[in-house]
Amino acid sequence: MQDLPDLAAIVAAQGRIAPHVHRTPVLSCHSIDAEVGARLFFKCENFQKVGAFKARGASNAVFSLTDDDARHGVVTHSSGNHGAALAYAAARRGVAAWVVMPENAPRAKQENVRRFGAAIRYCAPTIPARSEACAVIERETGATLIHPYDDVRVIAGQGTATLELLAQVPGLDVVIAPVGGGGLLSGTAIAAKGLFPGIRVFGAEPANADDAARSLRSGRIEPLAAATTIADGLRASLAERTLAAFIAHVDIIGTASEDHIVRAMRMIWERMKIVVEPSAAVPLAALLEGTLSAPGAAIGIVVTGGNLDLDRLPWQA
Amino acid sequence: MQDLPDLAAIVAAQGRIAPHVHRTPVLSCHSIDAEVGARLFFKCENFQKVGAFKARGASNAVFSLTDDDARHGVVTHSSGNHGAALAYAAARRGVAAWVVMPENAPRAKQENVRRFGAAIRYCAPTIPARSEACAVIERETGATLIHPYDDVRVIAGQGTATLELLAQVPGLDVVIAPVGGGGLLSGTAIAAKGLFPGIRVFGAEPANADDAARSLRSGRIEPLAAATTIADGLRASLAERTLAAFIAHVDIIGTASEDHIVRAMRMIWERMKIVVEPSAAVPLAALLEGTLSAPGAAIGIVVTGGNLDLDRLPWQA
Repeated sequence: MQDLPDLAAIVAAQGRIAPHVHRTPVLSCHSIDAEVGARLFFKCENFQKVGAFKARGASNAVFSLTDDDARHGVVTHSSGNHGAALAYAAARRGVAAWVVMPENAPRAKQENVRRFGAAIRYCAPTIPARSEACAVIERETGATLIHPYDDVRVIAGQGTATLELLAQVPGLDVVIAPVGGGGLLSGTAIAAKGLFPGIRVFGAEPANADDAARSLRSGRIEPLAAATTIADGLRASLAERTLAAFIAHVDIIGTASEDHIVRAMRMIWERMKIVVEPSAAVPLAALLEGTLSAPGAAIGIVVTGGNLDLDRLPWQA
Repeated sequence: MQDLPDLAAIVAAQGRIAPHVHRTPVLSCHSIDAEVGARLFFKCENFQKVGAFKARGASNAVFSLTDDDARHGVVTHSSGNHGAALAYAAARRGVAAWVVMPENAPRAKQENVRRFGAAIRYCAPTIPARSEACAVIERETGATLIHPYDDVRVIAGQGTATLELLAQVPGLDVVIAPVGGGGLLSGTAIAAKGLFPGIRVFGAEPANADDAARSLRSGRIEPLAAATTIADGLRASLAERTLAAFIAHVDIIGTASEDHIVRAMRMIWERMKIVVEPSAAVPLAALLEGTLSAPGAAIGIVVTGGNLDLDRLPWQA
């Protein structure tokens, strides 16, 4: 059995990270509600520190370390947002951070890491390459690995977004979070079901990276083939730990086509006037596509972040 | 002497339009504050109904009409946001609206008018052509002309954004609004100086459409040459009415180059994760360029709107 946080751990995380993260607003949009046939409440983690919910998990992990561990610094691998978040949290605690990143990570996400003073180490865009690069840094420096999602402290931190959302919008019937490695959805599900056992928790992922939907159906980790999706934040494989949380607490994982992701992202930009990254649009995309459905329900959606290169938007040729 | 609203008229407008407009949030951003050397508070009228502050003035005008006048409908000319706002307000009151628009108005702004059921009449992009088109509609239908800014009811409505802002952020030293025809800045200045005589009120406009800065210096309406600015909402000439308000209440009008407008707009998108139209970025642009300056001050900025074609962003070639 994998170690997972419980509701109490998420509440503790909320207190621990409160000085370091924003209590983000919840926005809604009548015209999108009319399109979906439900009432949607967008928890705007694009307004979060470093532009993504990842600030929550990383802050909880870094501020959970003993002083003795912390002084050797922290290390992680990340396509970007977790890396920036760890850099931010390490800077807040005054310790060093190393971030291993694929060479093709978006420029905006790389800059987001550098501005907090972390060191970037590039690697090939494969899982073995990045794990190896992290291991080298751990051996050389004594830094603690803070995995982007396969980490009980990180999952607890990510769950705090949903604790806030449930307090901000009483009476939600459903909460939806995107799925990459599953840290956010795990924390979301543990928080939501822990507080309200009758609530439904949905995941949403690109059809081109549907390993989580397949894994939840089969009950074991299904391989992720080459993930050619614009939702770059969701190109990760589940861990045994996050799959265990899904099996215990997630009702369904819906998928979204690339076309629907782009359409949903543009709809959010045009109608809500907020900048969200492609990953953040996947829950709305799944609702528009009908792979997730809750007619008439009050649905909370965790908007993961707003970091992307503004020079190349997905609806432009 | 031109008729202008007083503070009481703006307070009355606030009550009149409350059922029809949002109380928009105020956002801030530490990294932009650091860049400018002041504390900036962005009043997010991009989240307003129809995506712009214009919903305030149009609603106040339409709901100020007698039933007898209202039943003949309303007409206006507008590059877009005021047209959409009038269409929205007329739909709320259940009366007809006609909007005269230049043929080259952005597509997003045209759609914004049509979705509320107003009729668009195209005209050549000149002031005489649009005035003539309005006059024809007035004669044919008996509709009331609601001018985009040369209207005491419209100015009072626009001032309500600043009433809200001053309540949301106590202790502001300065308020800045962009200037096109001057309706927003007039209402802003009357509201701010009416409540706090010691507050400073700045205008901001594109250097390529700097007629308001020149007019405020000379004390008479200076002609607007061909206004080649991406800030399409600010391509209008002052009216005697708005100039009178500026002379009475506006401290200075700063200009911004096209480069600085684009840079400021991108900065707002990237760091604040909100979608704003070019006009909305002009106050920040003037601060970055140094034509407006208030070191260390608490500065409120009216973010005019968020309507633009997402297919062609100004930083893309």
